[in-house]
Amino acid sequence: MQKTNAGRFFEDYRVGDVIQHAVPRTVSGGERALYHALYPMRHALYSSDEFARDCGLPGGPLDDLAAFHIVFGKTVPDVSLNAVANLGYAEGRWLKPVWPGDTLRASSEVIGLKQNSNGRTGVVWVHSKGFNQHDDCVMEYKRWVMLRKRDQDAPAPETVLPELKAVLDPADLVIPEGLDFTGYDCTLAGEPHRLGDYEIGEKIDHVDGVTIEEAEHMMATRLWQNTSKVHFDVTARPDQRLIYGGHVISMARALSFNGLANAQMIVGLNGGAHANPCLAGNTVKAWSEVLDKARTDAPGVGAIRLRLVATKGGAPFALKGPDGKYLPDVLLDLDYWALMPV
Amino acid sequence: MQKTNAGRFFEDYRVGDVIQHAVPRTVSGGERALYHALYPMRHALYSSDEFARDCGLPGGPLDDLAAFHIVFGKTVPDVSLNAVANLGYAEGRWLKPVWPGDTLRASSEVIGLKQNSNGRTGVVWVHSKGFNQHDDCVMEYKRWVMLRKRDQDAPAPETVLPELKAVLDPADLVIPEGLDFTGYDCTLAGEPHRLGDYEIGEKIDHVDGVTIEEAEHMMATRLWQNTSKVHFDVTARPDQRLIYGGHVISMARALSFNGLANAQMIVGLNGGAHANPCLAGNTVKAWSEVLDKARTDAPGVGAIRLRLVATKGGAPFALKGPDGKYLPDVLLDLDYWALMPV
Amino acid sequence: MQKTNAGRFFEDYRVGDVIQHAVPRTVSGGERALYHALYPMRHALYSSDEFARDCGLPGGPLDDLAAFHIVFGKTVPDVSLNAVANLGYAEGRWLKPVWPGDTLRASSEVIGLKQNSNGRTGVVWVHSKGFNQHDDCVMEYKRWVMLRKRDQDAPAPETVLPELKAVLDPADLVIPEGLDFTGYDCTLAGEPHRLGDYEIGEKIDHVDGVTIEEAEHMMATRLWQNTSKVHFDVTARPDQRLIYGGHVISMARALSFNGLANAQMIVGLNGGAHANPCLAGNTVKAWSEVLDKARTDAPGVGAIRLRLVATKGGAPFALKGPDGKYLPDVLLDLDYWALMPV
Repeated sequence: MQKTNAGRFFEDYRVGDVIQHAVPRTVSGGERALYHALYPMRHALYSSDEFARDCGLPGGPLDDLAAFHIVFGKTVPDVSLNAVANLGYAEGRWLKPVWPGDTLRASSEVIGLKQNSNGRTGVVWVHSKGFNQHDDCVMEYKRWVMLRKRDQDAPAPETVLPELKAVLDPADLVIPEGLDFTGYDCTLAGEPHRLGDYEIGEKIDHVDGVTIEEAEHMMATRLWQNTSKVHFDVTARPDQRLIYGGHVISMARALSFNGLANAQMIVGLNGGAHANPCLAGNTVKAWSEVLDKARTDAPGVGAIRLRLVATKGGAPFALKGPDGKYLPDVLLDLDYWALMPV
Repeated sequence: MQKTNAGRFFEDYRVGDVIQHAVPRTVSGGERALYHALYPMRHALYSSDEFARDCGLPGGPLDDLAAFHIVFGKTVPDVSLNAVANLGYAEGRWLKPVWPGDTLRASSEVIGLKQNSNGRTGVVWVHSKGFNQHDDCVMEYKRWVMLRKRDQDAPAPETVLPELKAVLDPADLVIPEGLDFTGYDCTLAGEPHRLGDYEIGEKIDHVDGVTIEEAEHMMATRLWQNTSKVHFDVTARPDQRLIYGGHVISMARALSFNGLANAQMIVGLNGGAHANPCLAGNTVKAWSEVLDKARTDAPGVGAIRLRLVATKGGAPFALKGPDGKYLPDVLLDLDYWALMPV
Repeated sequence: MQKTNAGRFFEDYRVGDVIQHAVPRTVSGGERALYHALYPMRHALYSSDEFARDCGLPGGPLDDLAAFHIVFGKTVPDVSLNAVANLGYAEGRWLKPVWPGDTLRASSEVIGLKQNSNGRTGVVWVHSKGFNQHDDCVMEYKRWVMLRKRDQDAPAPETVLPELKAVLDPADLVIPEGLDFTGYDCTLAGEPHRLGDYEIGEKIDHVDGVTIEEAEHMMATRLWQNTSKVHFDVTARPDQRLIYGGHVISMARALSFNGLANAQMIVGLNGGAHANPCLAGNTVKAWSEVLDKARTDAPGVGAIRLRLVATKGGAPFALKGPDGKYLPDVLLDLDYWALMPV
């Protein structure tokens, strides 16, 4: 009997199937320290238990993207081990903060299938959820990937295309219980700019850059128990290890502190594209564009919708060429909602 | 007075001497997070406090090999600072799990001595033990190293050769108190294969590989407070830093998850050889061979004896050449007992 | 409105101004584990909660230099983002240990100003303090940096030169509450040498070396939330990333264990110079010179004043050339007080 996991192929998915992913994970202060060593994170709510308490929370949660990476990592062996491409994300929501001591597990429901016309590959849509030890859903997102078929002669499944929102409505966003920004301390947070200081359409060059090292992206990716071999094994690809797209997301988010220090909590992921591969030696920079703003019911808490773009060169604010395609220096184009003091 | 530690030489050991090693170490969730960032560890019992509780333990222990590395690291300044070669291990046993908050110290008793015929070196056998803050022995092993003499004219000691078991008997293995695999969840653990699914003689290619970085092996080796300078100082050797053999052990064990996800707890180390040096840039892969299987008294808990081989190239399952010597791509040949649900 | 922080320029400082620095930081066992993975730290009081308890403390504190780096990192965006040079330190004191769970914040008072004769730069002296969540000052130091002017035509401020002690008097040192070295265990600490075994003028070559990696110094510098871009962005300087001077301080201190294992707690920083830049690939070694010794009021606790020199080559004990300038292989010349059993 074959003992190793060969991963699933396109014909192994059925709409409605729910896959329970393996290897639950308990997080501690160790994960926070490592996350802050791997990325230049400075958002005060995640750096200081005291600051978080002053905002109505019991302490500083695990960084939202770390929670996302942990959930995502669990899905890899069942969803994307044989992926040709990670095509997109939609309707990502953070529903509960993750605290040190929490144990996370994940599941994915198959919500869409479409065989490609070449007959060799197909697209699978999944709705992935992360749960804590109380079986509360802490985050969810939808993702679609292109997968190889094991057997090209396997019949095409009925095409099912899920309806996905292009953008989460502000009313869809879940505000952590107790969050209160009425006493928010901008001096401790690092910048004076509140929601009212940002204009829709405004673009911010985050200025700082970080040159990427092999040891760092591998440590991060292993910490999330993401097993995709292209990130670790230089012999598995012609040239260089391919860096986990989530490493670029976290790096860009951390860099965006400089100009968006008060975009504290990520609560919604509207969409995202990994435009070009990132390799060790690349210097990652980031810029943001304000796409929307909204009020919430929580005291003093507003929501800001941001485009976050990571690049490995080129001028800030350059995104696509005249052909509508991403420029070769663009690594990431992410669309998310964050909570900010009004 | 010379203030720095020059290490011990062959003539400094007497059979029966017990050396108390320096620098006790308290471990926390930080050590766990780092261990899981440095190696692709996924064994559920060490990843999730909840999974461990469902197996009868109070929480997830520190990874067994991390405990071994901590104990081993303490012995280095007193045992192997002047070692010409690390010759072997035997009778390694894990006696108590190590929990976050525990403080470990170590001692070694000299149990054997034999001067080599060249008169310039000799072999020292030690029985090393790690203790927690309650003075419980948490693990022990025997190791022998070849050491230089300080003074070639020092008289040869009486030769004492310890009797060492080639393989631990299953009855020698100590099962952690409370361990119960009767409700073991294979889905959460990641693989369906139980002890009955493995056959003696079966070989498993673990498929995945990790390319080794200087920063990673140095971080690991420092975390274990192993002071051997060849691992850190590029000027101390002609070419490149030599990677701590324990880094290869942990890497291979982590890679073996893919095919041996349910070989949860390491309880016995029968032997091990570092066949060839590992250097940064090497891509480590692993394969295993099932050597034996046994029942234990604990509910649902079986024991599996495994050969774990790490390589830096070559085909899986190739171990030795026609001359009986390890092939040049073989890094490690380890023989251990692990606990697995029956 | 410009959203990113351009940093302060020389004309932005007024003597008497107190700057509250941003982004408070909660520390945990994660910071300790990372610190011990990044540097070969072995001082027993920081490695073992049990050893610390036997010395009268409630547990092992965060390493003193880690506390310093955290406080220092907070000051960077407000003090040294536009620094041409980090000129010196004086009157550094550790006033309270930092424990896992503590949250640190920092402030700096401007205590001196002097425009340079070129009219384009000036020197700013600050008195920086770190506080815990109880508003206790845990450490303080004075630092002076050379800063650019934004506007060369801005008028020169009145020159104010602070009075700085060249060396802290032993009576200025603050001994942690409860510290008691009367039962100090030299075997567990790793060396037999007590204060009485060191002579003023004695020099110690610490022998060991560590070759520096980009991934490691960036992880360390990010962990302290130091945002200075020269440490991270290879495109920000002509050649290579410049390593944070604090990385060299911690590395040299850790290496000094071998010969100064009982110089447990750093309580005073008399001065320090970063003599030459450190780059990845350099192999850092260290030597120390005993500058002074003193008694304290705490039982069994003495103080030792040490010069700690880090080098990237050359012979030990070589410091300056005939011209009085640091030799090109010297990285660091630090003058500090540590506590040692008498």
